[in-house]
Amino acid sequence: MKPRSITVDLGQRSYPIVIGNGLLGGDFDLAGYVRGSDCLVVTNETVAPLFLQGVIELLGTKAVDSIELPDGEEFKTVETVGRILDRLVDRGANRDTTLIALGGGVVGDITGFAAACYMRGVDFIQAPTTLLAQVDSSVGGKTGVNHPKGKNLIGAFHQPKIVMIDTDTLKRLPDRELKAGLAEVIKHGAIVDAEFFGWLEDNIEALITRDPEALAYAIQRSCEIKAAVVAEDEREAGRRAILNFGHTFGHAIERCQGYGEWLHGEAVAAGMVMAAKLSNIDLAEFERLCRLIGRAGLPIAAPSIAVADMLAAMGMDKKVHGKQLHFVLLESLGKTFVTTEYDDALLERILGAADR
Amino acid sequence: MKPRSITVDLGQRSYPIVIGNGLLGGDFDLAGYVRGSDCLVVTNETVAPLFLQGVIELLGTKAVDSIELPDGEEFKTVETVGRILDRLVDRGANRDTTLIALGGGVVGDITGFAAACYMRGVDFIQAPTTLLAQVDSSVGGKTGVNHPKGKNLIGAFHQPKIVMIDTDTLKRLPDRELKAGLAEVIKHGAIVDAEFFGWLEDNIEALITRDPEALAYAIQRSCEIKAAVVAEDEREAGRRAILNFGHTFGHAIERCQGYGEWLHGEAVAAGMVMAAKLSNIDLAEFERLCRLIGRAGLPIAAPSIAVADMLAAMGMDKKVHGKQLHFVLLESLGKTFVTTEYDDALLERILGAADR
Repeated sequence: MKPRSITVDLGQRSYPIVIGNGLLGGDFDLAGYVRGSDCLVVTNETVAPLFLQGVIELLGTKAVDSIELPDGEEFKTVETVGRILDRLVDRGANRDTTLIALGGGVVGDITGFAAACYMRGVDFIQAPTTLLAQVDSSVGGKTGVNHPKGKNLIGAFHQPKIVMIDTDTLKRLPDRELKAGLAEVIKHGAIVDAEFFGWLEDNIEALITRDPEALAYAIQRSCEIKAAVVAEDEREAGRRAILNFGHTFGHAIERCQGYGEWLHGEAVAAGMVMAAKLSNIDLAEFERLCRLIGRAGLPIAAPSIAVADMLAAMGMDKKVHGKQLHFVLLESLGKTFVTTEYDDALLERILGAADR
Repeated sequence: MKPRSITVDLGQRSYPIVIGNGLLGGDFDLAGYVRGSDCLVVTNETVAPLFLQGVIELLGTKAVDSIELPDGEEFKTVETVGRILDRLVDRGANRDTTLIALGGGVVGDITGFAAACYMRGVDFIQAPTTLLAQVDSSVGGKTGVNHPKGKNLIGAFHQPKIVMIDTDTLKRLPDRELKAGLAEVIKHGAIVDAEFFGWLEDNIEALITRDPEALAYAIQRSCEIKAAVVAEDEREAGRRAILNFGHTFGHAIERCQGYGEWLHGEAVAAGMVMAAKLSNIDLAEFERLCRLIGRAGLPIAAPSIAVADMLAAMGMDKKVHGKQLHFVLLESLGKTFVTTEYDDALLERILGAADR
């Protein structure tokens, strides 16, 4: 397959998303996106043995250093960012240095935030190696780390210079992570593209069995959808919020369960079903959504959590000043809106269904 | 005096600089620049007893919390930013929260960076209370903290919503800090405005004796100059570098001496003289610069430091990858250029003069 390229249109901050198989270790001109002569590849101990050498080969004559983080969301902290910054300082890295994030969403988020903060911002490149990162977190410039009291509370909007997606990396991805990535793919269809949603219904088995053409198309279409939404509203002042469909519930599930119990994509899957229930869409469309999520091997219901705990995790307790909860709801498959008006009683019933 | 207003023209990120006497505790509508209902004033233990109440009064019906940092550059660290972020999390602060920096450059830099990082960026307001912060650091959106191995290595460009300068705060400023602030005022004249430089020569005694009209004009003109340069080049890709006139030498002096020995403005004063020597300007103009700096009570020569130490502190040692030193030099008073071409032998002689 020839690599496909999508542009994230953000004026001076525009950048390409290149999707292809065998990019790592091939002849793709990644070095052409490195402004200076100096690079730091940030990866983790799981990904490094598989793909680090391939990235280094693409960087040719550049001076390349690398740092291997431990693997896991629990390391997505300010302290880990500090380790990367220390390394940059020790190298005498200057404003022309480029950071390269090689790994999943955690590596991308951490690396992007380190790039945003070093000398008030240096270039970075996303080379995502999980489906979730390829269809979601590597695109759009959201970077950051967790605070002990909440996810992604510390961060920056910082756009990469390029997102380089080698679909061959998915051959090494565990099944459960592949499925978790599909949750965000399904989300992209559900929120803005009924036709793509239909394509997913026709091709979900091909995706699960890792048909390369099917995966490449699903990634391409997801990136196109996300790129278009981000181009309209880079800093989430409005429309970008639709990308959070299923996430208000999903984040609450993750928080109540303790992170790491369910994968993010699994929580979002159950969250989408809950959001669809709150949406009052056609029963037939609701059932199509549930069926597709189920066929992808993802949960269509939350685990058992008390209603009060879910409400608190959604930030609906009294401590929060002036906070008004925004829900992303479906009008129909492919049509979404953001609202602060919803049926309180229905919300409690939906949460109660999880309170078994 | 009626408040004066200057606009920093940065498209959607444009903001006013308002300069007046008695703004704090007066009837200025600062609350009008606070988007939500929630504010956190960040100040330090020196400034709080003098001006915190005045800011709180201006915020009227908003929910106002405050945090008092210890006073000093040594607290301009990631750890201090962490304290502010923890407070925001504990308050359940959301994206509509506004941070207000009340103090000098250290408070402004720390607060701005905390605002840049919290939830990927919340609003902040600069209320500078030192001359240095009023004429320089509060304008232009540079925020950040120090790394143990270098100043301002960790930070962000994050523009405030307004810079509110109450010139009455200068009545409480120690003499030495007032003079240090004048170094940056003189710099603004020297780099782009020969007429303002002449005005400073005529009015330097009025400034030192804190004539309110003279101070207000010097602040206004400095802010106008800085605002124009920043509007042209927000992220220092080019022209903005001229604001660093005297700073390559000045930073090296601060680093070699240990921070806190000389004030930043004092180091910049001596640094401007060194940069002017390297510039090969008219002797008469060179002498005018030295004389004005001297009349402002500022040093015109660096303390005794070995040439090798100064060179290393300027990043001219071999460890640094691909680094090319840029100097901001004078063509004449009011005309500046940035260059990587300079007379090496002359540079060593200039540094040698400090190596007594």
